[in-house]
Amino acid sequence: MSASTAQLLISCPDQQGLVAKISNFIYANGGNIIHADHHTDFAVDRFLTRIEWQLDGFKLPRELIGPAFQAIAEPLEATWELSFSDAVPRIAIWVSRQDHCLYDLILRQRAKELQAEIPLIISNHEKLDAISTQFNIDYHHIPIAAATKEEQEAKQLDLLQQYQIDVVVLAKYMQILSADFIAKFPQIINIHHSFLPAFAGANPYQRAYERGVKIIGATAHYATADLDQGPIIEQDVVRVSHRDETKDLIRKGKDLERVVLARAVRLHLQNRVLVYGNRTVVFG
Amino acid sequence: MSASTAQLLISCPDQQGLVAKISNFIYANGGNIIHADHHTDFAVDRFLTRIEWQLDGFKLPRELIGPAFQAIAEPLEATWELSFSDAVPRIAIWVSRQDHCLYDLILRQRAKELQAEIPLIISNHEKLDAISTQFNIDYHHIPIAAATKEEQEAKQLDLLQQYQIDVVVLAKYMQILSADFIAKFPQIINIHHSFLPAFAGANPYQRAYERGVKIIGATAHYATADLDQGPIIEQDVVRVSHRDETKDLIRKGKDLERVVLARAVRLHLQNRVLVYGNRTVVFG
Amino acid sequence: MSASTAQLLISCPDQQGLVAKISNFIYANGGNIIHADHHTDFAVDRFLTRIEWQLDGFKLPRELIGPAFQAIAEPLEATWELSFSDAVPRIAIWVSRQDHCLYDLILRQRAKELQAEIPLIISNHEKLDAISTQFNIDYHHIPIAAATKEEQEAKQLDLLQQYQIDVVVLAKYMQILSADFIAKFPQIINIHHSFLPAFAGANPYQRAYERGVKIIGATAHYATADLDQGPIIEQDVVRVSHRDETKDLIRKGKDLERVVLARAVRLHLQNRVLVYGNRTVVFG
Amino acid sequence: MSASTAQLLISCPDQQGLVAKISNFIYANGGNIIHADHHTDFAVDRFLTRIEWQLDGFKLPRELIGPAFQAIAEPLEATWELSFSDAVPRIAIWVSRQDHCLYDLILRQRAKELQAEIPLIISNHEKLDAISTQFNIDYHHIPIAAATKEEQEAKQLDLLQQYQIDVVVLAKYMQILSADFIAKFPQIINIHHSFLPAFAGANPYQRAYERGVKIIGATAHYATADLDQGPIIEQDVVRVSHRDETKDLIRKGKDLERVVLARAVRLHLQNRVLVYGNRTVVFG
Repeated sequence: MSASTAQLLISCPDQQGLVAKISNFIYANGGNIIHADHHTDFAVDRFLTRIEWQLDGFKLPRELIGPAFQAIAEPLEATWELSFSDAVPRIAIWVSRQDHCLYDLILRQRAKELQAEIPLIISNHEKLDAISTQFNIDYHHIPIAAATKEEQEAKQLDLLQQYQIDVVVLAKYMQILSADFIAKFPQIINIHHSFLPAFAGANPYQRAYERGVKIIGATAHYATADLDQGPIIEQDVVRVSHRDETKDLIRKGKDLERVVLARAVRLHLQNRVLVYGNRTVVFG
Repeated sequence: MSASTAQLLISCPDQQGLVAKISNFIYANGGNIIHADHHTDFAVDRFLTRIEWQLDGFKLPRELIGPAFQAIAEPLEATWELSFSDAVPRIAIWVSRQDHCLYDLILRQRAKELQAEIPLIISNHEKLDAISTQFNIDYHHIPIAAATKEEQEAKQLDLLQQYQIDVVVLAKYMQILSADFIAKFPQIINIHHSFLPAFAGANPYQRAYERGVKIIGATAHYATADLDQGPIIEQDVVRVSHRDETKDLIRKGKDLERVVLARAVRLHLQNRVLVYGNRTVVFG
Repeated sequence: MSASTAQLLISCPDQQGLVAKISNFIYANGGNIIHADHHTDFAVDRFLTRIEWQLDGFKLPRELIGPAFQAIAEPLEATWELSFSDAVPRIAIWVSRQDHCLYDLILRQRAKELQAEIPLIISNHEKLDAISTQFNIDYHHIPIAAATKEEQEAKQLDLLQQYQIDVVVLAKYMQILSADFIAKFPQIINIHHSFLPAFAGANPYQRAYERGVKIIGATAHYATADLDQGPIIEQDVVRVSHRDETKDLIRKGKDLERVVLARAVRLHLQNRVLVYGNRTVVFG
Repeated sequence: MSASTAQLLISCPDQQGLVAKISNFIYANGGNIIHADHHTDFAVDRFLTRIEWQLDGFKLPRELIGPAFQAIAEPLEATWELSFSDAVPRIAIWVSRQDHCLYDLILRQRAKELQAEIPLIISNHEKLDAISTQFNIDYHHIPIAAATKEEQEAKQLDLLQQYQIDVVVLAKYMQILSADFIAKFPQIINIHHSFLPAFAGANPYQRAYERGVKIIGATAHYATADLDQGPIIEQDVVRVSHRDETKDLIRKGKDLERVVLARAVRLHLQNRVLVYGNRTVVFG
């Protein structure tokens, strides 16, 4: 399936005829639907869908698909997002001192598991600069202190603009972003090293050890102004035992963090995550 | 969501306009689609879908939905199956000596996790008769020997007809059904106590122990003439260690067998399993 | 391995020679060790062990093993617990309205997965009385109201004494026990229907749904005066998706609750759980 | 726990007094046991143990521990292996064209998750040479053809000797080693990209796709003369669905291969794997 496709993520109040109207729009213009998944959340009477069709032979040029679909979406009060399978989004990876998620994302991008460019690494430490050199990625060291946070965030925003970044991935970036920053650049995926909502906040592995849990987890979510409260994209877990000290939880957790974050980033890049309220529909 | 719905499982060669044609049929008749999931298997260029809509306000009476849809399906060379969410299929449970899956299915049916009736238990042993009494289900003891197999299978078929059975669940029935029987009554779900295709055939736990595997599994599949080769509906696994002897694998495996079989039966009853070739699409 | 064994759970400050002293005691008396597992928790410098040996040929009569071992334990400042593999502990199962864990425990006991007797069911509702009849177990209906809680707990304690109960299993008993009760009868295993410490307290499935988690869990723990804060024995999880409403989480969770509670009860009955502080060592 | 320890893996016919004799040996020489785990396999009446003690204050110098213990082991007909926690084994990683396990092992070694040196990469292809340069590891390209296999294996053996290699890790090395080679250098860990014994041999992901399994796995095992039949060290699995084509199974499988192989190598390096017959005891 190398041919290009278009993808629509749509959210609107439930009513009759939604699938028909959307699929007729595609069919009438000569598109062949290859994946479609419709879900109704009855708790809020909301219709949520992802639909993907082949662009080969589609009669509308790309730049007209959005305007044309808006004519259908407007009377349905639908919010929607259009994307193309051959787009190559630009990722900025933010890190502190730990390198495992950074390496993992870069290697997956190199292995073409993630269809994206990674032109920028931002860190509040200098430690991982060598990795950026190794893989030829720009590295910007922006230290954060309480007094300078506002101006440093301004610098970060400038960099995101300058590098034309589409999505920020917090790959073990151990700083809290201000609500103001997130409002200005909301496309942010974070990995939290616990099975949220358990152990939100600092030192989750230490607290997991102290609580004596038998399973630990990791959670990838969109960052919001409320720390560790954003919509969850993906979670996974691993069994631990009394033999595991905090340092073992950290080691085992790293494997989780890598794979959970990578899955979330891949789902996001493939436009498979639809956020509504504080929930996500993940179209697998 | 207590209102009744109709469900279509459809399989046909891939082509443009399939979603539009199907959803137009439903919309034109006043149906509201509440779940739909479309999948294209590019390896065989086949379109596979499950679509479900509310019957409340639907203009076609139930008995005309099939004939009306057939007019759409025929030019698409589609095979399809129509079902209704308020149907109550009739299950025959077949057992030998082990009771854990039998109890589990009955209790789930009583707890309304399985929307079905269980009017009939067939066994090649007398051992579990007391359970049938406890839950007021008819129990037929039909012993099997090589010499009598053909006539005994004839008796079994008679019972299935007499009790108007829709689906047979082999809940640890330790006999092999003849190809002839399966041809005459193909709606059969079996639980095999291994992670197929590993350890097909007899004594899988003993062989898993001997091989020294670190994980064991169970597999629910449709029975076909080739033993343990039918389309897989559901599988699950559990970790084991050197401390687990064969008897521990059996004990741990029982928990798997219960839950894997129950999930498969539930998916089947909800018409969420579409078989094509030797594969299944499970619409979750 | 049908021959009887003795089991010691030992906890003491770490020091040299502990394994030698304990194993010499057993060897000197003619015992053959069949399982032993020693663990040192360096965070608190504590030695924790479980050791099991065959009684066949052991020179000390059962009633003298404890006193003899105390002579070794005392200078080590060890706390210890002696048990025998052929003991048949007596369980009281406490329930409210849900029957799935109750059925599960009874059936496992009948299938000899749990070596115990279950002479008593206590419930704050009358609903599950029929099950007790079905399996010939005494059922005591003790309704709880704020005003009567103290006197009702006194009745419950009387019943535990009268039936010579060794361990109480709260199998979805939806009442909080008083600290006073727990102090008087501390051998209590509870199943909480979430992945603790996430969603402690009431309505965990509803809250899990609202938070939009992708995995739910269940936790078996010893009850303590702090609600849902006791030492964790076992946990397990299952994946959920946006298609799962709260009622689906409840259904999927029931499978977890059954198996997690049953594993915890079995581990407890086999004297494989050593509690120290608010943590457990589970000797698998 | 940074202090050095000694570790004994012991296997012998079961009899009374084994734990006492072994622990007395350690105690008499002033050692403090920090981990010990004893297991009896009753199917073959064999006692299998791992015991670890602190060397600080131990009266025997390292080079005398083995000879001294042999005096105890001999009358017990025990086979045993002594190792030290501060040893740094030397690994040769063998690869073909896929780099994910290679990267993973190198990065874990750099992150000190694996206590080992990796001085040598051997490959039948030139493709991954750049990685060896990146991490400053010698890379030897030894192409294999049927006609030259014998002489090429001789070269490989020479390299293992020259680099003083302790263990070979086949990190997706897509060639079969001769029985003769394995006899000469038996310390070989392989990762097979299926849940053995399912899909032994070539193209397991393609065959898993064709069979329509719902879960795929990976297996790390010691290589033996029988292809994919060696003692299993570790396995893990991941769920797949009808949406996953063969290329998706390959992608998902890579995450399994990485983590399963890394766990097996770590367990081996920590001398936690005891092989007897075709089985392993993994002391976790």
